[in-house]
Amino acid sequence: MIDVALIGAGRIGKIHGANLARQPGVRLRWVCDAVGAAAEELARAVGSAACDLERALGADVQAVVIASSTDTHAELILRAAAERKAIFCEKPVDLALARARECAAAVARAGVPCVVGFQRRYDPTFAALERRLDAGEIGAPEVLAITSRDPGAPPVDYLRRSGGVFKDMLIHDFDLCRWLLRDEAAVVFAAASCLTDPSIEEAGDADTTAVTIRTRKGRLCQINTSRRAAYGYDQRLEVLGAGGMLAAGNHRPTEVSAHLPGAISSDPPEPFFLERYRAAYAAEMLHFAAVLRGEAQPRTTIDDGVRALEIAEAATRSWREGRAVAP
Amino acid sequence: MIDVALIGAGRIGKIHGANLARQPGVRLRWVCDAVGAAAEELARAVGSAACDLERALGADVQAVVIASSTDTHAELILRAAAERKAIFCEKPVDLALARARECAAAVARAGVPCVVGFQRRYDPTFAALERRLDAGEIGAPEVLAITSRDPGAPPVDYLRRSGGVFKDMLIHDFDLCRWLLRDEAAVVFAAASCLTDPSIEEAGDADTTAVTIRTRKGRLCQINTSRRAAYGYDQRLEVLGAGGMLAAGNHRPTEVSAHLPGAISSDPPEPFFLERYRAAYAAEMLHFAAVLRGEAQPRTTIDDGVRALEIAEAATRSWREGRAVAP
Amino acid sequence: MIDVALIGAGRIGKIHGANLARQPGVRLRWVCDAVGAAAEELARAVGSAACDLERALGADVQAVVIASSTDTHAELILRAAAERKAIFCEKPVDLALARARECAAAVARAGVPCVVGFQRRYDPTFAALERRLDAGEIGAPEVLAITSRDPGAPPVDYLRRSGGVFKDMLIHDFDLCRWLLRDEAAVVFAAASCLTDPSIEEAGDADTTAVTIRTRKGRLCQINTSRRAAYGYDQRLEVLGAGGMLAAGNHRPTEVSAHLPGAISSDPPEPFFLERYRAAYAAEMLHFAAVLRGEAQPRTTIDDGVRALEIAEAATRSWREGRAVAP
Amino acid sequence: MIDVALIGAGRIGKIHGANLARQPGVRLRWVCDAVGAAAEELARAVGSAACDLERALGADVQAVVIASSTDTHAELILRAAAERKAIFCEKPVDLALARARECAAAVARAGVPCVVGFQRRYDPTFAALERRLDAGEIGAPEVLAITSRDPGAPPVDYLRRSGGVFKDMLIHDFDLCRWLLRDEAAVVFAAASCLTDPSIEEAGDADTTAVTIRTRKGRLCQINTSRRAAYGYDQRLEVLGAGGMLAAGNHRPTEVSAHLPGAISSDPPEPFFLERYRAAYAAEMLHFAAVLRGEAQPRTTIDDGVRALEIAEAATRSWREGRAVAP
Repeated sequence: MIDVALIGAGRIGKIHGANLARQPGVRLRWVCDAVGAAAEELARAVGSAACDLERALGADVQAVVIASSTDTHAELILRAAAERKAIFCEKPVDLALARARECAAAVARAGVPCVVGFQRRYDPTFAALERRLDAGEIGAPEVLAITSRDPGAPPVDYLRRSGGVFKDMLIHDFDLCRWLLRDEAAVVFAAASCLTDPSIEEAGDADTTAVTIRTRKGRLCQINTSRRAAYGYDQRLEVLGAGGMLAAGNHRPTEVSAHLPGAISSDPPEPFFLERYRAAYAAEMLHFAAVLRGEAQPRTTIDDGVRALEIAEAATRSWREGRAVAP
Repeated sequence: MIDVALIGAGRIGKIHGANLARQPGVRLRWVCDAVGAAAEELARAVGSAACDLERALGADVQAVVIASSTDTHAELILRAAAERKAIFCEKPVDLALARARECAAAVARAGVPCVVGFQRRYDPTFAALERRLDAGEIGAPEVLAITSRDPGAPPVDYLRRSGGVFKDMLIHDFDLCRWLLRDEAAVVFAAASCLTDPSIEEAGDADTTAVTIRTRKGRLCQINTSRRAAYGYDQRLEVLGAGGMLAAGNHRPTEVSAHLPGAISSDPPEPFFLERYRAAYAAEMLHFAAVLRGEAQPRTTIDDGVRALEIAEAATRSWREGRAVAP
Repeated sequence: MIDVALIGAGRIGKIHGANLARQPGVRLRWVCDAVGAAAEELARAVGSAACDLERALGADVQAVVIASSTDTHAELILRAAAERKAIFCEKPVDLALARARECAAAVARAGVPCVVGFQRRYDPTFAALERRLDAGEIGAPEVLAITSRDPGAPPVDYLRRSGGVFKDMLIHDFDLCRWLLRDEAAVVFAAASCLTDPSIEEAGDADTTAVTIRTRKGRLCQINTSRRAAYGYDQRLEVLGAGGMLAAGNHRPTEVSAHLPGAISSDPPEPFFLERYRAAYAAEMLHFAAVLRGEAQPRTTIDDGVRALEIAEAATRSWREGRAVAP
Repeated sequence: MIDVALIGAGRIGKIHGANLARQPGVRLRWVCDAVGAAAEELARAVGSAACDLERALGADVQAVVIASSTDTHAELILRAAAERKAIFCEKPVDLALARARECAAAVARAGVPCVVGFQRRYDPTFAALERRLDAGEIGAPEVLAITSRDPGAPPVDYLRRSGGVFKDMLIHDFDLCRWLLRDEAAVVFAAASCLTDPSIEEAGDADTTAVTIRTRKGRLCQINTSRRAAYGYDQRLEVLGAGGMLAAGNHRPTEVSAHLPGAISSDPPEPFFLERYRAAYAAEMLHFAAVLRGEAQPRTTIDDGVRALEIAEAATRSWREGRAVAP
């Protein structure tokens, strides 16, 4: 039995806790949170126990799940690596590229497995598309087009601490770009605007973006994002290859269609990421448990975390300076 | 805490056990099965304990979930009702109409809640359609068309004991007919053929059916079924009303589409009922737990079980005699 | 150059006239109509000339297109056959089976080609489905399910003279049944109701039907129809075979979809038969021109017209008498 | 009756000729082509007469349709404007921006109507989307995403004279950008690669592009194109606004779907522009005829032609220089 401590009992911590609690060969030994009551409540719900941070990183656990606030990630990764614990860390590794690289180096030195929470790679639809791409169904990828829209923006307060839209929101899309185009970014051009809420502009951020990435092999990626999609959480992508196209559509709550005067309608997409990626979060923790049991290598590594951050930095600079930038 | 015994630890018993084990206010106290090892294995997996039938119907449980073989249902319902326990029973109540009526009468006399396992009513898609119908989105229902096809036939040995295709397979569709047309069957006409496997005909059964039901108010229902759909488990229905149509489509494993020379393709439906109705089975046990806690009245009653069986008997007779029959 | 006379310059006559006027090797020599002004107007529009009936059946034409009112079809077929002219006749051949058979016999004796206007067989979607069925894509057909709904009922006055819903509306579906199941009807059971307008019932007719046909080989066909579909003209069908299913969906005016709060919507089907079957009518006249030039044999013969009428008579009797009927 | 001369009897000239020949109030008086036999053949097919260029621009016609090769457009526009004839001209006006502006100035001085052949604006799907956008269905447009892929590249010989992919292929997309975002381009960034055929690179051109346009109001447009889509001609676009999204999908030859083991499939898109835009070409000439009769103002003007060319020049420069460019 491998004992694991969960650090962070907020929204995403609850999901990871519930998913991890069901894995064979793994025991969710401790739950810890800056807010003690939150830790206790979650511990109760998943049959675990609350503890403080020292114990969570202590001798009686072999692995940690880091689901606390972004500004604590790097410190916790460094400490966990120093203690030679296996690590699962929510994205992003850190908002500062240098700091993220420091974490990656520490993980490498420690030789511990570290899975980064790019959950989209575990989504049944995206994962099936990637397997079919990998199987050669359409040949080598040439063009990737990603549509990524949130139903609504988070509070401006959150945005101010978020690192900006490219690090906060498109970090996932940059990871998908590397994963699906099987190549590294050579040039990034990012256009962006503030079209939904002037207070986002006042906070120095943008709500609507259009990013182009050209890879070393000349493959092309286009990403368009918005903080506002009136119809729900829009998460689609398409990969074109010599042999055709593989496309990933949205998931819907039900398969009811209404045939009424003037229109045939079906459900809008799942409302937001907790619903859309429910299965992805479960598969992600299933994967982490397999890594813990020595049955799998991390599929989303801390290096992936660093690379996506490099593109996000390049995109931010491209947007600010109005020019194409090499990451 | 309400203590429940689960009787039957086979395929469907495992599903009910896992779903019931998570419900607040309810404890899965015992698991019992004719095969002791099966009971023990399931009990372990869901944190319960194995027992024999006497204990399962004994004083320390307030409710039973009957998931054993069909020929035991009636006896167990009668005993549970006599012990004044709340009952969940898998469909069908019994293959013999008189015996099913006897059970319904016993349940009524005992005054215990009894939920019958017509899980399709709990399917997110069918349930959403029914709520929208109920809300008047298309007016009163006029026509119901049901397509219901299995990926492949069960062994002929099973078919011989199944009561025939109308009681074994269409019983669900007959329940949907009553539920969605909000009316009772007045006339049933059933045509059927054996087109997929001659051994089914030798067993006195059919594999392909086309049933028409006219209700008392003149509403029309058409059901077509097959024991073989090469593309998977096909479970669709459409309701036409004065204001339009509500349709329920199949569920798919992923939302990937492949755009290749000659065709655009997407996933076939979920392969069979365990996948297609996974969410329905969970919602069904959620409902039973709510009934146990006194928060809900049974949505699928033992009377519903009897009525569906009446239509199945009429359909069987209609098919055998080549004429329209009143249930 | 083959000279053709068009008899009937109403709604369907205009369509046939415009489509025939463009065919190579064929000249639309005359247009005639009980209303002289209608004939003249259409003749002008298609570059033809108006004439009376004697001339339309006279020595200077080799073929006639009969698009006049139903009660004139049989008389015109008999006269045209007697004059050894090639014939295109709108469906139905006649409302009386005996009279339709008389026409078929006359056509056979005369040895002239006669194409009957079952335009659905020429619809690009239905025709493509039939070609793929014919190519063995799903094996032998086992089940055919047809949905056929008009946007609204014609005037009751028309219904009174229509021969009833089975001869007027389902005649097309009965033809599709024979065409797609590649077999003749052995038993017909028709249920029907009047649910949309009591005046239809007063006229002795029904507006909503559910028909089952079992063929000699045991293949099953289900047809459900309504005189009212609030969302437009609904014309779909599905064929199940051992290897899978081929389905034909509705055509839409545009491929716009709207993604709005609460629903994703697309266009309803084409509003009615003139729009839905525009391409079918064009292909039908293309075929008739090919028949006239000796390049093709009639794909929809007068015998097809008689057979569909036989099923319509059986369905009418089945509905009236509440029992299954052999055609 | 307004007499029109058609200049150019090639592939697109044939389409315009056939469509124009049917318009009320308009007569296709002459057809002229550098290849006399081509002019004569087309003239015969549409009931017109062949002539030389002098006559086509002579006193007895009031309008010209310019469908000859691109290098002749400007000269013909200038001559037709000098003769005060109404003009329809295929896109592009000219490959050189200065020359195109000269044409626009001449048309303005002459005060003649001039319709430029951006046929996509007349496509039923795109036009319906634009009308709904115009009606405010989703509020002001914020993001436009265009996918535009040809089934295969034209011969390299053609590409060498084409002005490059941005002027030859994306000129349509740049026009859609201005039309649907209701704003002018402020910045253009174009990435491009040669991924399908090295001979295209040798010709100094690209086959795969990813273009971002930011408009003056900060609206964002993304265009991705390829000279090769194995599955057919892919022409889709999406407009996001505050209230939701309007999307335009591909058209399909039929609505047949095949439900087979492993996949549900439907038709690929119409194979290429002649099929996809058949209705658009017809609507375009309908519009030109209405302009000729004084019933409409040109919807696609020569200024639209100049503006799209400005963006194409900016995109070409952006690609060559690897930087964002203001048109």
